[in-house]
Amino acid sequence: MMRTENHPAWLLPSGFEDMLPARTEALEHCRRSLLDRYALWGYRQVTPPLVEHLESLLTGSAADLDLQTWKLLDQDSGRLVGLRSDMTPQMARIDAQTSASGEVRRLSYAGTVLRARPDLLGGSRAPFQVGAELFGVGGPEGDLEVLSLMVESLRACGVPHLLLDIGHVSIPQALADSAGLSAAQRSDLLRLVERKAWPDVRTWLKAHGCGQAVTADFTALSHLQGEHTVLDRARQQLGQHPAIVEALDDLGFVWESLRTRYPDLAIQCDLAEIRGHQYHTGLLFSVYGPQRGEALARGGRYDEIGAAFGRRRPATGFSLDLKPLLRDLPEYGKSQRIWAPAGSDPDLWKSITAERHKGHIVIQDFQSESVPDAAQLQVRGFDARLEQTLGGWVSKPVPAR
Amino acid sequence: MMRTENHPAWLLPSGFEDMLPARTEALEHCRRSLLDRYALWGYRQVTPPLVEHLESLLTGSAADLDLQTWKLLDQDSGRLVGLRSDMTPQMARIDAQTSASGEVRRLSYAGTVLRARPDLLGGSRAPFQVGAELFGVGGPEGDLEVLSLMVESLRACGVPHLLLDIGHVSIPQALADSAGLSAAQRSDLLRLVERKAWPDVRTWLKAHGCGQAVTADFTALSHLQGEHTVLDRARQQLGQHPAIVEALDDLGFVWESLRTRYPDLAIQCDLAEIRGHQYHTGLLFSVYGPQRGEALARGGRYDEIGAAFGRRRPATGFSLDLKPLLRDLPEYGKSQRIWAPAGSDPDLWKSITAERHKGHIVIQDFQSESVPDAAQLQVRGFDARLEQTLGGWVSKPVPAR
Repeated sequence: MMRTENHPAWLLPSGFEDMLPARTEALEHCRRSLLDRYALWGYRQVTPPLVEHLESLLTGSAADLDLQTWKLLDQDSGRLVGLRSDMTPQMARIDAQTSASGEVRRLSYAGTVLRARPDLLGGSRAPFQVGAELFGVGGPEGDLEVLSLMVESLRACGVPHLLLDIGHVSIPQALADSAGLSAAQRSDLLRLVERKAWPDVRTWLKAHGCGQAVTADFTALSHLQGEHTVLDRARQQLGQHPAIVEALDDLGFVWESLRTRYPDLAIQCDLAEIRGHQYHTGLLFSVYGPQRGEALARGGRYDEIGAAFGRRRPATGFSLDLKPLLRDLPEYGKSQRIWAPAGSDPDLWKSITAERHKGHIVIQDFQSESVPDAAQLQVRGFDARLEQTLGGWVSKPVPAR
Repeated sequence: MMRTENHPAWLLPSGFEDMLPARTEALEHCRRSLLDRYALWGYRQVTPPLVEHLESLLTGSAADLDLQTWKLLDQDSGRLVGLRSDMTPQMARIDAQTSASGEVRRLSYAGTVLRARPDLLGGSRAPFQVGAELFGVGGPEGDLEVLSLMVESLRACGVPHLLLDIGHVSIPQALADSAGLSAAQRSDLLRLVERKAWPDVRTWLKAHGCGQAVTADFTALSHLQGEHTVLDRARQQLGQHPAIVEALDDLGFVWESLRTRYPDLAIQCDLAEIRGHQYHTGLLFSVYGPQRGEALARGGRYDEIGAAFGRRRPATGFSLDLKPLLRDLPEYGKSQRIWAPAGSDPDLWKSITAERHKGHIVIQDFQSESVPDAAQLQVRGFDARLEQTLGGWVSKPVPAR
């Protein structure tokens, strides 16, 4: 096989990495702690496949998922398949295929997703996605449950000082609806709002003959970010739109409930936020760490997506990538490490097995290795050694230097 | 997107499946129990990527890995990359790149591998591979350690009545070496031995002018399968080859040690076994369950493979696919399930949180759901419910019907 001198075969493709023991153990610790938490909230873990038919992976999803999805030809069927780049649509499919009508369903998941291109320059192409989705609950109590679980997930991973950002796609959508536009125009306008290109929004509204009132509403919208008072201001400025009042009621309920549950959580609103509006249908949320930057977890309501799989159901959920969180992990419990000498003495084997049953790490040397002294054992990170006494093999602490 | 009527988009490609909660929880339980066990033996978990450059994935491996490997074009580099179909070569690469010279290194891993075609008709194309590899130990004590861990892995997964099959690639290889063949001829002959096509072996030996003694040796080899006495017979019949005597010593050591450690383990030898001989360099082992059929786990020594990554190191290990083992799993501990009513009473929330801290599953209903009576709670699998008393919210058992 060909190999170029300055690019050896064993360099990994950009955006992929080996996770060595320390990082893998951090991931494993975090992964377990989250999945166990979800189970205690009634969310049951499912495992969708890494590979699916392309139509199934991309159904109902935004166009950026298409660009991010790695496509392959399936030798077995001759059809195009894709590597999953997001597990949420897979959850909607599983719910549509396996749940009873009207049933409330809680699902959790954890696994690698693959990206044909990284989200950011130099970013990962193999995020480790963990999340939870709630199906069958249309009201804001459903959003509150997944929001609470999202906040607790990040706290469990040791991220301090969270900032939660909430919005509601119905608010910008209701303003666009009020402008009397065609479907294509509405979608053009919402794309500008999504980019928060406010001067362009104003120019566009003027060019399309939208009146003073519509322009005033969008101008008001562009300033509706910040603390809880934003909700009151929105009620004053946009209260003539019934869909907006309903959305503000939901936001208010969620805000008050979260404040009671998590008094030290920082919350802010961005009523113009409309990320993923082709996909989302209600509340939207993102949570940031102390450095802000990219959101650490995202979620929202997406009631329509199940329709593509034959069942339209209320749905809300969140997901996060565990990998960027790992650096924030606190140190966790370390087992005692015991050294054992080489040899096939059955009593030595019994003693080794007994120590492992106690949860101690026992590493047996091989004939080929020289017997280490206490200083060497310390350097190698051992806390104790198995020694033969008259009463059998016994674990003795390695004396401190 | 196009969709044919009798092949809906959401049918999964052949060999892929959704794992629903019961199966996912079994996998999760098994996965944790194995990785925790490996940690107690000093094996530290690493996570190689799902995607690598093709040269790196296929280096030093047998040709069948090439056929099984799904190939993709990397948009970012324009190079061919592959989806891993086996994690063992990735471990050899990680060891070569990250270990100190002469250091004994123990690595474990767990993850999905992907196959362009299934191993068996109707088989899985996404096995969940778990394994452990030991680097830097050349003697049979190294093989004994990984063999012991392999046996304990299958027992931990609840497989009863294991049959261990051991062999040693040096034995058929030494006979081929004694025949004075060219490299190409030697490899032709070993391919026939690998298929256990004994009449063809005999014809081939005659056609290539191999003498009486060589033919007699191969005939003897074809009968060397079975209980421990096979080792004695081999010593009598093939003892003139020093490499074979050495291999028999190793097999004898491993056999005796395993018999002491696991008295009820069934062991048999197959000295003509030479599976993966382009890759393996010493002891070979497979373990079967009570139904025999396909091996449940396989392993062996592969001292040469690291050379391709710049460091030739002694190496031995095993791996298994967890998915077929899941049906053999015993039932494991089930948490108490508590029902909680809808509502945003802060005391109710505190009580829910406290019950979850105790390890109980608490599922809170939503406003939209009707309040269930005891019979309905039982049907829904609840053991207890939160009830408001004068002293606050209390968990009370659901009365038996």
